[in-house]
Parts: sequence; structure tokens; C-alpha cells
Amino acid sequence: MHVDLNCDMGESFGTYQLGLDEQVMPLITSANVACGFHAGDPQVLRRTVELARLHSAAIGAHVSFPDLVGFGRREMNATPLEVENDTLYQLGAIGAFCKAAGVPLRHIKPHGALYNMAQKDRALADAIVRAVVAFDPALLVFAQPGSALEQAAQAAGLTAIGEVFADRAYNADGTLASRKLPGAVIHDPEQVAERATRMVTSGSVTAIDGTVVPLRAETICVHGDTPGAVDLIRRIRARLAESGVDVAPAAAR
Amino acid sequence: MHVDLNCDMGESFGTYQLGLDEQVMPLITSANVACGFHAGDPQVLRRTVELARLHSAAIGAHVSFPDLVGFGRREMNATPLEVENDTLYQLGAIGAFCKAAGVPLRHIKPHGALYNMAQKDRALADAIVRAVVAFDPALLVFAQPGSALEQAAQAAGLTAIGEVFADRAYNADGTLASRKLPGAVIHDPEQVAERATRMVTSGSVTAIDGTVVPLRAETICVHGDTPGAVDLIRRIRARLAESGVDVAPAAAR
Amino acid sequence: MHVDLNCDMGESFGTYQLGLDEQVMPLITSANVACGFHAGDPQVLRRTVELARLHSAAIGAHVSFPDLVGFGRREMNATPLEVENDTLYQLGAIGAFCKAAGVPLRHIKPHGALYNMAQKDRALADAIVRAVVAFDPALLVFAQPGSALEQAAQAAGLTAIGEVFADRAYNADGTLASRKLPGAVIHDPEQVAERATRMVTSGSVTAIDGTVVPLRAETICVHGDTPGAVDLIRRIRARLAESGVDVAPAAAR
Amino acid sequence: MHVDLNCDMGESFGTYQLGLDEQVMPLITSANVACGFHAGDPQVLRRTVELARLHSAAIGAHVSFPDLVGFGRREMNATPLEVENDTLYQLGAIGAFCKAAGVPLRHIKPHGALYNMAQKDRALADAIVRAVVAFDPALLVFAQPGSALEQAAQAAGLTAIGEVFADRAYNADGTLASRKLPGAVIHDPEQVAERATRMVTSGSVTAIDGTVVPLRAETICVHGDTPGAVDLIRRIRARLAESGVDVAPAAAR
Repeated sequence: MHVDLNCDMGESFGTYQLGLDEQVMPLITSANVACGFHAGDPQVLRRTVELARLHSAAIGAHVSFPDLVGFGRREMNATPLEVENDTLYQLGAIGAFCKAAGVPLRHIKPHGALYNMAQKDRALADAIVRAVVAFDPALLVFAQPGSALEQAAQAAGLTAIGEVFADRAYNADGTLASRKLPGAVIHDPEQVAERATRMVTSGSVTAIDGTVVPLRAETICVHGDTPGAVDLIRRIRARLAESGVDVAPAAAR
Repeated sequence: MHVDLNCDMGESFGTYQLGLDEQVMPLITSANVACGFHAGDPQVLRRTVELARLHSAAIGAHVSFPDLVGFGRREMNATPLEVENDTLYQLGAIGAFCKAAGVPLRHIKPHGALYNMAQKDRALADAIVRAVVAFDPALLVFAQPGSALEQAAQAAGLTAIGEVFADRAYNADGTLASRKLPGAVIHDPEQVAERATRMVTSGSVTAIDGTVVPLRAETICVHGDTPGAVDLIRRIRARLAESGVDVAPAAAR
Repeated sequence: MHVDLNCDMGESFGTYQLGLDEQVMPLITSANVACGFHAGDPQVLRRTVELARLHSAAIGAHVSFPDLVGFGRREMNATPLEVENDTLYQLGAIGAFCKAAGVPLRHIKPHGALYNMAQKDRALADAIVRAVVAFDPALLVFAQPGSALEQAAQAAGLTAIGEVFADRAYNADGTLASRKLPGAVIHDPEQVAERATRMVTSGSVTAIDGTVVPLRAETICVHGDTPGAVDLIRRIRARLAESGVDVAPAAAR
Repeated sequence: MHVDLNCDMGESFGTYQLGLDEQVMPLITSANVACGFHAGDPQVLRRTVELARLHSAAIGAHVSFPDLVGFGRREMNATPLEVENDTLYQLGAIGAFCKAAGVPLRHIKPHGALYNMAQKDRALADAIVRAVVAFDPALLVFAQPGSALEQAAQAAGLTAIGEVFADRAYNADGTLASRKLPGAVIHDPEQVAERATRMVTSGSVTAIDGTVVPLRAETICVHGDTPGAVDLIRRIRARLAESGVDVAPAAAR
């Protein structure tokens, strides 16, 4: 039994430092690397891909709407064609740094508002998938199980990797509970580590209403921007190890 | 006997249209396509690469300093490492659109201020060349004969393609005469077409001081932003044909 | 009887030219000048404000979401505070060029997606209005009669100027008919000129369903990006003159 | 006897935090606030101007070349007219936030590469000064004593404020010694505090070759980006106080 740990990386920009990439990279198995649209720049991309290579983390494209000042967190009503071409551009950009480092680009995970919209909006999801098909159909698509993005990827013959969030409550339909609800974000590290492990070993999660929801937990999203977050990743790894779950980059089955 | 005709393409941006790409593309053999740093955006890249494919024009990366408002025309004292990584980023971006269109990326030609600086500054030239080597050593490097960029390319084992400017006067050392000098820019279309042809057939140019300078004319830079420019390309092609010179994309020897 | 003619101006950017500002400026009475977020740059702002001064057109801030590549046409879920501060920034920027030219900044008209959202979303409208109050409460706010932006302006004690679109069909509630409906955009110049004039003289418009809707037509939005558009402005002016309607910049009552 | 302490502030951007503004603002008397070209955004500007108001720090425009990814540290060969208009744009933008906060904009200090170039290049210095004259001739211009910027300001009838760097070695001609020379940057806090005080009390500095150079020390540039930097400001203030030097915002004489 195994699972992937993915984390957003390479979100510095110019003189601005963000995230504890040096500390986190050794602890994760997949790095979602910013491609310059919400964060990252060519210098940061170079260093981040190199850092991932050094620690054998699989590299993915963390593609975004073009919104640096908003960090890609603001929904935009871009057309599917705009999203497709923006995605293709970013895939190419990060792909060049992978080529330079002699490592493959392995996956794609949309960022921020684009991630959220692509879970629900099939037209946007299809647009992202079209870019992947055009660029490299071997890329894994990280998506929430049951989401529009997962469906779009599978419909195009791509491999979708089921992503779960151990620090978030789930609805009975397998979607994430709104952050506005009490208890929607779980802060206790022990509880998060325990949830992460149980998601993987049981293939399910207990929803906010008590329902047990089946959930394909192939990659766990972790955060790397605070010392507490780094400790949490360590704890998740320890708890997974105790339960006999290996951590390894996601892979096509 | 043959020569390449190269022209800057894909320099529109968002709602802004620039250049007569639709009219020019059928007339040229190499398109230098903007990669988003001085002009171009993902939508424009998609359309431009598709247009080049349609007309069998070879596609090149027209890489630039990151200066959209200045159209890449302003010198910046970026470090060689910044130039290397900015180049790699842009190569990857356009490369993705080539991949999507099923056509190869064939060459690189720096744009504007970066072009001018790379002809003289070996450290910048080396930086560009390192990016090419890392991305695809089969890419042709368009450079003025005798320039630092040509030397850097050749030193790294890349193929440099000798670029000439039929509408510009030359110094006795084979460099371009400053635009500030009287007669530095040749406006008479017939004269430009004649010069272009003679450069190719004779392998030389008569410098501003009367010296005959040997010049490897493998690709001729033409412009495509005014109706007059389009007519000029037609005239150059006609004059070349009369002299038995074929036009064809530049290629490794 | 009089009415204002407003037109978007100063939408060039860097090397990119957009709009026929030189031809249009003499024909209009209010210029909505781009402030650098969807179009315009400091050089363009300088020239445009100077051009407006020369032709005695009143100058307004054409504020936008920060989306150059999308020309401000894409909705973004920016927070009201972001919109307030983005608006304040743009008001200041254009205000500096007005100060340099010795002319007042007279009005504000949001651009594109922000315009559309501010007609309906009171929180966004209030955000824009707060920026105006903080910067200069004497600024006129161009807004569709009955819109959220008009209400927000009036609630804050600002003067809202009723804006109408002579080339657009209206719904019975005084809102614009969706562009997707047949007949929503009126293309016949004579009909547009006639509608414009009747809106002003009658203070009403015949909606798409035949209803006569009262409409405070204080400023008419005209376009200036094609030769045909320029002719249309001339025709509107001629038709207004025939009906005894003067054109003059909007003013506080 | 009194002196001003100025520090760069408001250099965060979007989600990126830079500098210890909250800790530093109470310790300084003039805040050079980024205007969005090298750092800062409308949200950051709002907060920074508010913070300055709260602590009664005088507010200045920290204008820059448009180079966010390079943090304004890279020289660009922009034309004087471009620099003039870019400066005017930034003055207006920050001026709007000052107006909203009910505080005056008091000074201008170019940032990074523009600062360095404007000390030596009279044409650029004149361009900046023209923007100041057009926007508000009461603005103080922070410039190194004897610099082109000081001369340009004085020639236009503006007040130039003599800026000194207590942690930098000086040449015998009153210019800063190159950072590449050994000893060019002074790291010992006690020594820096001592130098700062002596510059103010003696009106001179001992140059790197032992020469005593007269120097009009009206404002001392301090840094606020590390805990050590904050301590250093405290130490400078203490040492100034011991010597009977008050700290107060720079003012026209």
C-alpha cells in the first residue's frame, strides 16, 4: 500500500521568498511547481526543478490563471480556449526546465481558483485536458475523485490521480465542505495525520454528516509554508509508516 | 543556391493587433514568433504557430527581455543567468505550441535589445546558447556573421545561421552601420531587393566606405508590419528568383 | 437641451495602437481614459490627456480590473476592498496627468467587466464609490440609470450621470438586452442616430418588448475604433443638432 | 540639530511579504513607499500609507523602473520622457492614497537602478524633476549631495534633501565607494551608528582614502528588512540622541 504526498513548490517570485521549499522538498514525493502565472519566475523555476531533482520528487505543472497580484486565487471568466492555451504555455515553460534538468514532467495540478473551477466546470476541465493531450498524454492529472476534472481526464484517456485533503471536512457527496462551515478545516496535527492515513488504508472518509464516503486517496495534498506545516508533513509520514503505507510518487497504473 | 527569408511574427497581444501576419506568412520561410515577453500571448502563439504550419514556414523562438510596455527594445542589465533562464522559459513556451501543432521548433532569434546586445556581449550570447543547448541543440541560432552570438553558438557546437539586413548599410568590419548615420537605412525597395540578391549570390556586401566585405548571407531579415513591407518581400522574392536563388528555410549543413 | 458624448480613449499600450483617438477626440465631449490596468501606459496617458485638453473634452478615469491580456473584459471575483484600492490607484495615476496638463479630472466610468459588474453588484459599486469619495467627491460617476452604481453614487452624495447606449436594445426594466439576443445590437447608423436623439429628447426608450421605458439620457456612449464608428459619431451629432440638442460635457446639476 | 531617518517601506506585493514595516515605521521619520512598479500594489499602498500616518512618518514616493521581477534593480535604457511619465504615474498613484488617508505626500526618492542612474545621469534626473514640478513642486527630492539629481532639483527650484548612507564607505569626491571594494559596506552596528552621528554633527565624512569630505547629511537611509536592521535603527537613534541630535522628517528650509 502506498500514497503520494504532493505540495505546492516554487511559489517565490523575484526578490520575494515564499514557502519552505528546501525543508519540504525532501519530505514530499510530488512537487506542484508554479509556472509564472500566479507565482514563480524563470529563476525560481530553474532552482525549484533542480531542487526537486535532487530529492527525487516528481515534478508537476501548477498551472494558474494569469493573476500574479491575486496569486491565482481569484476566479476569472476566461474562455475555455484561453484556459487551454494558458495551460499549454505553462506546460511548455516548466517542461523546458525539466528538460534542462534531465527529469521528466510527471503531472499537472491546476492552482487556486482554476483548481476549484476545474473540479466543477467540465468545459474548463476539458480545456485543461486538451492542453495536456496536446503536450504530453502521459502526464498524470491530479483531481478530486468524482470531479469534472477527473471525468474530463478519464474521458480523454489520461490517468487521473485521486487527490485528497486530510485537513478538510468532506460532504456526503465526496466534495469538500465549504471553508465557511465550522469544523471545515481540521487544525489538530494528530487528527490530520490520522485522517490522512485512514483515507489511504480504508479508501474512504467520514463526511461531515457522519456518512462514510468512498474516496480514492492516491495523493495527499500537504502544505509547506509554515514551520508547523513542515512538522505536520513529518507527522503524516510517520503515521503512514506505522500503518505500513509507503510514500511514493503517483504513477500510472 | 538558396536563402531563407525570416520575419518577426506573432507580435500581437490580447486585443492588440500588430503586423500583417496573414499576408506575410505565405511569403517567408522562417517565422520568428514572439514568446510573450515583449509581445505575443498564449492565444497569439497558438494562432501564429498554426499559421506558420499552414504555410510551411519554419518556426523560431523570438525571445526577449521581459519588457512588454517597452516591446523588448530597451537594454536591461539582466545577469547572464537571468537571460539564460528567461530564454529557456520562452523556448519551452513556444515549444509547447509547436508540439501541439505537430511541427518542430527550428530556430531561435533574440529580439530587439537582447538581439543587439547578444551580437556584441559574449556573456549574454553564451547565456542564450546555454539555454538552447539545454532545450534542444538542434535549434539553429540566427546571428550576424562574426558576432558574439555566432561565436558562442559555434563554440557550443550549435549551427549558427548568418543573418543579413538588406535595408541596412554595413561597416567595413561587417557590423551594421549606426541608424543615426545618413544612408544607414535604405528605403528604395528596388535597391533593397538588389542588395539582398547580391549579398546571397556574391557572399559579400559593399560597406559604407566602399570596402567589399565578405558576408555569409544564409537568412535575410524582412519586415512585415506595413503594406509597403509586404510589397518589398514580394520584390525581394522576385529578384532572387530572377537570379536563380531559391528561398527555403535555413537548415543545418 | 443638451447631452454629453463619451468615448473610450487612450487604449493604446506601448507599441500597440488602438482606436482613432486623434479623429474622435474633436467629436466627443467626454473622454474615458484608460489608466494602465486594461490598457494605456504612462506615455499613452500623457498624450491622451494632452489631446483631450487640446479639444476641450472632459477627462474621466476609465478604471478596470488588472487584466491587460484580457483587456479588462473578464469578470474577476476581486474583493470590494481590492476594487476600491485598485480604483483609487488608477484615479491617482490619471489625476497626475490631468494635474500636469492643467485640466481637471471630471468623471469616472468603470471599464469592461468591472462596468458590467458594478451596474448590478452593489458591493462592488460601493467600493468604487468609496474610492471616488476618498479621492475627489466632485467627480461625476457615469452609470446606467437605475443601476447599482447609480444608487451607490447617489447614496454617497455623488452626482451620477445617466449613461445610455444608442446602439443597444433595452429590456423593459431599463437594463440592456443581452448581446446574445437577435436585434440586441443595432447596426444601422441612421437608426442609432435617431435612437440617440430620441432618448435625449423624450427621456425614454422603446424596449425590446415594445414597452416605453423612462431613461435619463445624460451621456451617450459612442465608439471610436473604426472609421465607421467615427462616421456614426458625426451622424449622431448632426441628428442631435437638427433636433436642437447641444452636445456638452456632463456636469453636476 | 536634527536629521531625518528614511527607510524603504511598502515593498510587499500580493501574497508576498517583504520588510518589517510594522516594527520599523515607528522608528523612522520618512517612509519611501513603493508605488507598484518594482514592488507594492494598491492594497499594500493603502496599508502602508495608513501605517505611516499612524506613526507620523512623512510619506514619499519610491518610484522605479517598471520591473517587478527584477525588483527595479536592473538598469534599463528608458528614455527621459518614459522616466518622466512613469514617475508622474507613480506620484499620482501614491498621491491618491495619501489623499485618502488625509496626509500629504512629502518627498520623492527614486528606487534601485533608477536611483543610481539619476545620481549620475542629468537627463534622467531632469526627467524625474520635471514630473515632480508638474505634480507638486513642494515635494522634497532625496538625493546624494553633489549628485546630478540634486543639481537637477535645485536648478528647477525644488528642495533637494542631502541623503547619506552610514553603512557605506565614501570616495574622496563624495560619491559612494563601489560595493565591490573591500570595506565598502560597514557591518558593525556600533560603527554605523557612530558614523551616522558624526556625519550629522560634523557635516562631513572620512573617505576611504582618509580625506575628510564635506557632506550635507539631512536624511540617513536605513534598512528595515531584517531583525538586525531594526536593531541597528534603534542604535542609530540612541547614538543620535546621546549627541543631542533630534530625529524629524526632512523639511524645506
